[in-house]
Amino acid sequence: MTQPEAAEGTRAGRARGGRQARQAQRSGAGGAPIVIPGIRRAIPTYDLMSEEGLATIEAAVDTLLQEVGLDFRGDDRCLELWREAGADVRGERVRFPAGLVQSIIRRAPASFTHHARNPARSVIVGGDNIVFSPAYGSPFVYDIDEGRRYGSLEHFQNFVKLAYASPWMHHSGGTVCEPVDVPVNKRHLDMVYSHIRYSDKPFMGSVTAEERAEDSIAMARLVFGPDFVERNCVIMGNINVNSPLVYDATMTKSLRAYARANQCAVVVPFILGGAMGPVTTAGAIAQSMAEAMVGVALTQLERPGAPVILGNFLSSMSLRSGAPTFGTPEPALGSLVIGQLTRRLGLPLRCSGAFTASKIPDSQAMMESAVSMQAAILCGAHFILHSAGWLEGGLAMGYEKFILDADFCGALHTYLAGIPLDENALALDSFREVGPGKHFFGCAHTLRNYETAFWDSGTADNTSFEQWRDAGEKDAIKRANEKWRAMLRSYEAPPLDPGIDEALQAFMTERKQAKPDMWH
Amino acid sequence: MTQPEAAEGTRAGRARGGRQARQAQRSGAGGAPIVIPGIRRAIPTYDLMSEEGLATIEAAVDTLLQEVGLDFRGDDRCLELWREAGADVRGERVRFPAGLVQSIIRRAPASFTHHARNPARSVIVGGDNIVFSPAYGSPFVYDIDEGRRYGSLEHFQNFVKLAYASPWMHHSGGTVCEPVDVPVNKRHLDMVYSHIRYSDKPFMGSVTAEERAEDSIAMARLVFGPDFVERNCVIMGNINVNSPLVYDATMTKSLRAYARANQCAVVVPFILGGAMGPVTTAGAIAQSMAEAMVGVALTQLERPGAPVILGNFLSSMSLRSGAPTFGTPEPALGSLVIGQLTRRLGLPLRCSGAFTASKIPDSQAMMESAVSMQAAILCGAHFILHSAGWLEGGLAMGYEKFILDADFCGALHTYLAGIPLDENALALDSFREVGPGKHFFGCAHTLRNYETAFWDSGTADNTSFEQWRDAGEKDAIKRANEKWRAMLRSYEAPPLDPGIDEALQAFMTERKQAKPDMWH
Repeated sequence: MTQPEAAEGTRAGRARGGRQARQAQRSGAGGAPIVIPGIRRAIPTYDLMSEEGLATIEAAVDTLLQEVGLDFRGDDRCLELWREAGADVRGERVRFPAGLVQSIIRRAPASFTHHARNPARSVIVGGDNIVFSPAYGSPFVYDIDEGRRYGSLEHFQNFVKLAYASPWMHHSGGTVCEPVDVPVNKRHLDMVYSHIRYSDKPFMGSVTAEERAEDSIAMARLVFGPDFVERNCVIMGNINVNSPLVYDATMTKSLRAYARANQCAVVVPFILGGAMGPVTTAGAIAQSMAEAMVGVALTQLERPGAPVILGNFLSSMSLRSGAPTFGTPEPALGSLVIGQLTRRLGLPLRCSGAFTASKIPDSQAMMESAVSMQAAILCGAHFILHSAGWLEGGLAMGYEKFILDADFCGALHTYLAGIPLDENALALDSFREVGPGKHFFGCAHTLRNYETAFWDSGTADNTSFEQWRDAGEKDAIKRANEKWRAMLRSYEAPPLDPGIDEALQAFMTERKQAKPDMWH
Repeated sequence: MTQPEAAEGTRAGRARGGRQARQAQRSGAGGAPIVIPGIRRAIPTYDLMSEEGLATIEAAVDTLLQEVGLDFRGDDRCLELWREAGADVRGERVRFPAGLVQSIIRRAPASFTHHARNPARSVIVGGDNIVFSPAYGSPFVYDIDEGRRYGSLEHFQNFVKLAYASPWMHHSGGTVCEPVDVPVNKRHLDMVYSHIRYSDKPFMGSVTAEERAEDSIAMARLVFGPDFVERNCVIMGNINVNSPLVYDATMTKSLRAYARANQCAVVVPFILGGAMGPVTTAGAIAQSMAEAMVGVALTQLERPGAPVILGNFLSSMSLRSGAPTFGTPEPALGSLVIGQLTRRLGLPLRCSGAFTASKIPDSQAMMESAVSMQAAILCGAHFILHSAGWLEGGLAMGYEKFILDADFCGALHTYLAGIPLDENALALDSFREVGPGKHFFGCAHTLRNYETAFWDSGTADNTSFEQWRDAGEKDAIKRANEKWRAMLRSYEAPPLDPGIDEALQAFMTERKQAKPDMWH
């Protein structure tokens, strides 16, 4: 296993290595140990709300499920599944008797391994594990040299390469940007192929149509083998609820396609308070939980035991303009409560990300993203989509933003490692050696520890004013620009079995020839 | 009470108003209610470390106090106080029998009111209250128009005016920048006068010599009256420990001057790991607690019951250059544990701030500052010095940074207000009204709540890409630049009793004439 740029952040790297080793030991399986490149939290979650408060919100969730219900539009099989499960189905409106959704959810695994084609890059989703994954779904890309323009397959592949090269991204993501130069009905083939060809980290497939979800899973079968895929999670699909309280057929059919294949659906309501939900955070939380729980339950009706992630995406709104705002306090607070509620359900959680409304990776962007990512860490999210690159409320994937965010993810590795409390950490001998009024530069304890003592950012400038001035007064954006260009220049693709590559290409060719291009 | 710019952040403003009213009601005192413009936390602290872990660190603190001890240099009265209290004093080295420091600390108040000359601006230090105060001590100032240059009295007054005009600063601070155009031995007079003349928020005095501390307190007596000052806290002095494990005479004599006058000493070890303390966080925490606890105890030997704040300032180091780093994960984690330990001692805490090593208010600066300020909020700090303006490891006070930081403090007001859980917040009627698939824009609940629903930043740009582009593609720094210039243009000084003003000026003239100028 080679870890590009692993020289950075040595402390986190070492801590992770230690945990990997212990995990592999615990697994007790024969053969080569599974090395887990994700991170494990050594710090507690931040539990914002009292038990009583959580119960109040759970009661509101029950009211929504029992009284208001959700619409499932255009998917008869889905309505049939709900009817069979005991829900109250009238037309496309489905209401859920008390406890029904919760009892179905119990069939879902609390954690599972999301396999990468390189086993050393497989990650555990759930428990104390955390997976950082790049931003998802932007039609545009941005860098400071050429500004904002539409995404393309080349940009898509660039971001796959950057996520592969970053030690702080554990996952290759999904639609890291929209390759708008490829027909809408064939893009998923190129995207899935790019994740496989240019990375060996775990990845996501398409959800924009049932057959595209099926294609994505079929390509995964060519890589992992059909038997392995039948028994293990090797691909994820990100299912968006049509908030408020609606699932359309595209989403339920894709969700069921992933579940049917024993692959992971990530079920995510996106609630912009005041538009797709109420402006008050407590109400938005209740809505989000109701919507997501129903989607999670649907995966279990399709295939009990299928891996699934409960997702959440709360956003706020500018009072002056009605525009969505990101990285604000309300969604950060909401994430903390969503984390508590999801732990009570025993499900893996996707929550928060490096959000911002800024058009560029400036002070606003990083202030907002830092708030949002800290909420992800504190709330106990397991799978953090949008960990790097997000700009402009998700409309643009930024090259420099990707680098700054990935660096912040690196810092969070150290944060998550917590504070060791062994004899070396307490350092009492160093005080005995140094004593009052002396400095610690050369003492034995410093010499023994300084190489791995502190988080060492790859983008921050910590030099003196004079050094910084003489080096050209570069700001963080300029340094990030130089860094992503250097990373792409030095990128080397991971090996891929030529037989698998051929099979994938043949599959793509056949699928592309079978249909005319669609451009919208 | 006028609140400049109170139109911004209406929700937080209203929430604070509600809390103020409730507080005033609870106080039960006759006459006009005391309005408290600080904030009260409605969210819990984030308790990182287990009870067992805290006990381990407390044991390390005890070892440092009993075995290694601290040096008190050049202050015989201080050594005498320690000897009388039962400490083991040999030369200037003082060691403390088990439990001695803790038992003395118990004399200190758990919370106190820090009075402003405008009673509506008085703040409570301790309990669930939080006070934001500007950055302190920079020799340089920075703005994007003129770059970095030395501070001056004009810059000093500008920052006092900006802190007065910001609704998110509860405090005027102390040495908001060094006025290097005023002689070193007379600067404190102009600084204290400027805080009084250009603001009516609470402020800090000098600590750079005992007589300057005495002068600062004397000026406060001219404003508040000697009897009031004898019974109430009206001024603070920020006392830095000469880490590791040394107090010099300047610091102990200034500390004792504040305590003697029943005014608040803020006792702050500044530990740069690897230089003034060990590189491991647990050891640095133990050292910091030992140093601060001894200083707190010294205030209580000087005058039992004097108000005092336990302070903390941990920093990390770049492994590549040996340069100090700020806004990194280790000090953020350290702050959380310092908060837990200080709560066990029952003392008000000063901790963290908007730290960064960046030379300019760029993405690095705001990412680091957001991490650092979130730690301050989560750790339960009561008095947060350096909340706004800090650049370059404290070497420069930035105009644009001040604005961006103050705006972040505004966001933290909303964060600290938590998530209301009443019927309106749960919004169940809005779901019944709107139903699946409809939008919430015009529903009764939205119309009733939207004006105060969300934090509304005064510096973030949430417009569309096209709107932002057509408005000149301004980044956050440029917007902050326009904002501080506008705030200074529209600044109006609060009223000051002409008799008090005359008395202050006469005092300054007399003190300035009594001594020759000193320039270093």
